[in-house]
Amino acid sequence: MPEAVVVGIGRTEYSRRSGRTTLAMAAEAGRAALADAGLEPGDVDGMASFQVTDSVINVFAAPAIGVDDLAWSADLYGGGDYAAGVVASAATAIATGQCTTALVFRSLNGRSGHRFGTVTGPIEVGGEGQFSAPHGYLVPPQWMAMWARRHQHVYGSTGEDLGQIAVTQREHAVPNPHAIARVPLTMDDYLAGRWIHEPLRVYDCAFEVDGAVALVLTTAERARDLPHRPVRLRGGAEAHCAGSWEQWPDLTTMYSAHAAPRLWSRTGLGPADIDVACLYDCFTYTVMATCEDFGFCGKGEVGDYFAEGRATYGGDVVVNPHGGLLSEGYVHGLNHHFEAVLQLRGDAGERQVPGAETALVTAGAGPYGGAVVYELGA
Amino acid sequence: MPEAVVVGIGRTEYSRRSGRTTLAMAAEAGRAALADAGLEPGDVDGMASFQVTDSVINVFAAPAIGVDDLAWSADLYGGGDYAAGVVASAATAIATGQCTTALVFRSLNGRSGHRFGTVTGPIEVGGEGQFSAPHGYLVPPQWMAMWARRHQHVYGSTGEDLGQIAVTQREHAVPNPHAIARVPLTMDDYLAGRWIHEPLRVYDCAFEVDGAVALVLTTAERARDLPHRPVRLRGGAEAHCAGSWEQWPDLTTMYSAHAAPRLWSRTGLGPADIDVACLYDCFTYTVMATCEDFGFCGKGEVGDYFAEGRATYGGDVVVNPHGGLLSEGYVHGLNHHFEAVLQLRGDAGERQVPGAETALVTAGAGPYGGAVVYELGA
Repeated sequence: MPEAVVVGIGRTEYSRRSGRTTLAMAAEAGRAALADAGLEPGDVDGMASFQVTDSVINVFAAPAIGVDDLAWSADLYGGGDYAAGVVASAATAIATGQCTTALVFRSLNGRSGHRFGTVTGPIEVGGEGQFSAPHGYLVPPQWMAMWARRHQHVYGSTGEDLGQIAVTQREHAVPNPHAIARVPLTMDDYLAGRWIHEPLRVYDCAFEVDGAVALVLTTAERARDLPHRPVRLRGGAEAHCAGSWEQWPDLTTMYSAHAAPRLWSRTGLGPADIDVACLYDCFTYTVMATCEDFGFCGKGEVGDYFAEGRATYGGDVVVNPHGGLLSEGYVHGLNHHFEAVLQLRGDAGERQVPGAETALVTAGAGPYGGAVVYELGA
Repeated sequence: MPEAVVVGIGRTEYSRRSGRTTLAMAAEAGRAALADAGLEPGDVDGMASFQVTDSVINVFAAPAIGVDDLAWSADLYGGGDYAAGVVASAATAIATGQCTTALVFRSLNGRSGHRFGTVTGPIEVGGEGQFSAPHGYLVPPQWMAMWARRHQHVYGSTGEDLGQIAVTQREHAVPNPHAIARVPLTMDDYLAGRWIHEPLRVYDCAFEVDGAVALVLTTAERARDLPHRPVRLRGGAEAHCAGSWEQWPDLTTMYSAHAAPRLWSRTGLGPADIDVACLYDCFTYTVMATCEDFGFCGKGEVGDYFAEGRATYGGDVVVNPHGGLLSEGYVHGLNHHFEAVLQLRGDAGERQVPGAETALVTAGAGPYGGAVVYELGA
């Protein structure tokens, strides 16, 4: 991974109904990130974002922020699988001199607008869905339920194991003023949650919100004159594997089984080096599989790993200290990057992970996704 | 621009009605490009494509080609403005070690499926279109007509000037067996063409087709063992400027006025160094503005430049030797890259540009776009 550092972070409120356009939210988050970085819109010459036709494109967001000429732009078309790649692509563009300062954003009305977990009208089905959709197998919680069930069958994991993840992350969200879900959650509450698609209960699913997040990246050299301690991208890796969500040969692992060895090899790090792990958690099961695939614990051990406090303060690593997509809100994974940067800067307040120097952010689920490692710069 | 070379090119037939899915065409073009490169699907570990929700995404095309794990992927969401960036992004990924061999494709049923020049049903309008769409100002030929009209007003360019471009490019397409439009076109024919949106006639508009194009890129080192002379990416530049298609301050220039100085400065080249120029030609006017912006001739001189034979064989540079999007077909600009590579290899047959060593490919129109320069490798 080329040398690029995050020098600014910004976001809007996360809500159930923003009452605003994705353009307005992108502009607010973008300007906030620039103000945080101590930069002006005119300093930005690159932009990256991702979306599924539910958001504004770079060239429309740019003028709303005050940016007037992008020497580099990437509008990625995809889901959470691009929530790490979108940052890595900006870092790469900077490192190769295609731009010097890039704004990365994700803006969506994920609750009041297009909701990922629902189908509201006629759908056009191609690719992997053409054989399954006619049977009503249409949305991510259904797909992920199949994976979680297989994991239970093969490794004996349980609903309570998934519940440990939901309960721990909610515990982390309680002191986070930006989180959408801050009411403490007990295991009893979790188990009483209604089925969304068995074995996934309502608390196994990301909390859909409206909102936007933005990051500003620039060169290490430029970062020296800016107010915050720079957070460096140490490395990144992706894996997008053949086989659809239904046809993946081993439903108990994810893309992360392929991305993790790449990431550790490129960075020279391993799970023991990570202080903060913002693991993509569209569902609790994603955290389960990712924890295993990245080597935080063995297959089938995630329930105990969380129950024994190894994934929280005082343990091996703090997983999703902000509450994650499950409790802080589903800003499609870019809020994981915000949290990683905040933690490494030491600016996370009441939920600060003491001495955090290295953070892992993963993105994606099923066969498609990626990850990056951030570390505190000099 | 990092060191990466094109080692394979592939395409399907270009037709008015493929009768096939974009997936099937992407797979055919992708396999053809790999065969041309002397590589196997298993050698591919990166993919890039662009689309406007009218095509298959990388992870669905990959298994259809036989690719089973992508260490890097970029599905770009956009129009012709990404037809250069999609290749540059793959080159960057290779040069920075994110993947070693990347397949780049564009597949669309641009004639029998979604046609860019028509609105066929209810549309959702946001961003730049919200104020203009209610007045019926909806599609690219309308936008570009406004630009061409302004150019005529300011520089005195004429319909005949645009016609020179259409006539020259058709002349180039006649011996191209892959071109969709091979019937010779005279200036009289051109002038008798029906108005699409005045001052643009039917022959000013790209010829929409169904089809797919694919390129294979890899490292210079890897390229040494492969059958074709490698075609190296010497450099690239983009410019995506604030201001929508309607609000751009100078309608007589395009993104290229900003991208061109960047490109020449990064590559150390100038227009006089270019042997083949595949200029993005969704409309003749795009070629007019691009020719001026990249410095092939002065403002308002394009008509003469073409009329005097300076943009064809024996002139200063051969513009769109395949006939371009106007006559070979609108494969959304990726066919420009195919032609550039074919010409530099010396494999263009009857339409070979003698001694071609350097090719410019531009992409995009209006305020958004980019360009790359290819040169013959060692």
